[in-house]
Amino acid sequence: MTKSTRRDVLSAIGIAAGACVLPSCLNTAKDTQIADDTDLQTQWKYSKLDPNITAQRAYAEFEKGHCMYAVFAAIIGQLADEHGEPYSQFPLHMMKYGSGGVSKWGSLCGTLNASAAVIGLFVEEKTERAVLTSEVFRWYEETALPDYVPADPAPEFTLAIPATTAESVLCHVSVSNWCKVSGQKAFSPARTERCRRLSSNIAAKTVQVLNAWYDSKSQTQQKPQTCNSCHGKAGALENTLSQMNCTTCHTDISDEHP
Amino acid sequence: MTKSTRRDVLSAIGIAAGACVLPSCLNTAKDTQIADDTDLQTQWKYSKLDPNITAQRAYAEFEKGHCMYAVFAAIIGQLADEHGEPYSQFPLHMMKYGSGGVSKWGSLCGTLNASAAVIGLFVEEKTERAVLTSEVFRWYEETALPDYVPADPAPEFTLAIPATTAESVLCHVSVSNWCKVSGQKAFSPARTERCRRLSSNIAAKTVQVLNAWYDSKSQTQQKPQTCNSCHGKAGALENTLSQMNCTTCHTDISDEHP
Repeated sequence: MTKSTRRDVLSAIGIAAGACVLPSCLNTAKDTQIADDTDLQTQWKYSKLDPNITAQRAYAEFEKGHCMYAVFAAIIGQLADEHGEPYSQFPLHMMKYGSGGVSKWGSLCGTLNASAAVIGLFVEEKTERAVLTSEVFRWYEETALPDYVPADPAPEFTLAIPATTAESVLCHVSVSNWCKVSGQKAFSPARTERCRRLSSNIAAKTVQVLNAWYDSKSQTQQKPQTCNSCHGKAGALENTLSQMNCTTCHTDISDEHP
Repeated sequence: MTKSTRRDVLSAIGIAAGACVLPSCLNTAKDTQIADDTDLQTQWKYSKLDPNITAQRAYAEFEKGHCMYAVFAAIIGQLADEHGEPYSQFPLHMMKYGSGGVSKWGSLCGTLNASAAVIGLFVEEKTERAVLTSEVFRWYEETALPDYVPADPAPEFTLAIPATTAESVLCHVSVSNWCKVSGQKAFSPARTERCRRLSSNIAAKTVQVLNAWYDSKSQTQQKPQTCNSCHGKAGALENTLSQMNCTTCHTDISDEHP
């Protein structure tokens, strides 16, 4: 696993600092072919960030585009401030699609969708990508969140945001569990504030995981998912593709089930 | 709802064809500030595509990065071939993160994650974005898929890929249902081929929905989700954030439930 500095990358593609000969400048519209994946991939390199700043930034970005946007824009925005392109040219507005588990469908939590996208942008190797993503996802499932407290919270939210264990990576389950514990409604301002703080938590966690990977301290093995020993890949049944917490939805498993 | 041609956009930001004065060329790394969302958003415009070509392209792209990558690269790649930048500069490799419902977690189906991302890239208005996304998502839940047949399928797959109704936008449920009907294993080559063809279906459907929107023929209302009249926004309980098919997971609802 090698990681290059921005200078290495620019140097490798023969670019002197300040000169404008990025691929984006070499062609006019009609005669441009789509760049090879590998060419573009070399331009997107992670460099370590301060997760406390990421968390604060995610809290601020949330207002512009909610959960997925907040996490993605907080991380890529920090890199853009530090290094400029290509980070500054990412069409961040796209990431508004993930709010409420994608347009309020309640599927994958938008904070996790963004976290996985950021990891996908920087971590080329498939197994490494899965390990880092799982580190964030499993932590989200099992940890009482949010515990981020903004420096200057609105007076009505100084005490009113309880932390709950989501038990699922799905927005619908995560929100429902929080509503049950907090007594708040799913479309209340308090629930929005909960997701705003959760965005800060996941943005910071993603940066922590990427920082450790950058320093090559990351785990190289995924935590095993017990049910998959029979239901998953190479299991006797092999009828399931999932790493999610099974019993959150499968509540009717009999006592006789292994 | 106004839609601009590429020429309008370039003209609006004062760019003569062929001249390299895109924002990416104006600054060197250290002094570049992140571009304003609105500036970048004006550069990303949809123009109509042939869904048959998109489907074929998704089938080919699948080999490079699986489901989410296939759908996203098929659509953005077509636009890049036709118009060059900014489409040709999107870091497509990022989209490999969504395969298997994000690194085999079985959450949101990668084909739908890509479809929603593409819609998010081009459709600025939040309600319109939700309507178009829901059109693809509900269709995926309710339609027997895949029905795409590649022009030149591998001999072992000429007849062996049954179409099933996913009843869910989640990869895990969608794959499990298909395994049950087909008798195939979750990590079998036949299941991979099923997801490859599904990628073609969803890529083509996304283009059909965007083409209709471009022609302003799209529906402006989302199909109501019955359970949400009590459980959703402004319902008596308001304890749920979801548009997903409820009864796929909530199988234990008693007959006395309204």
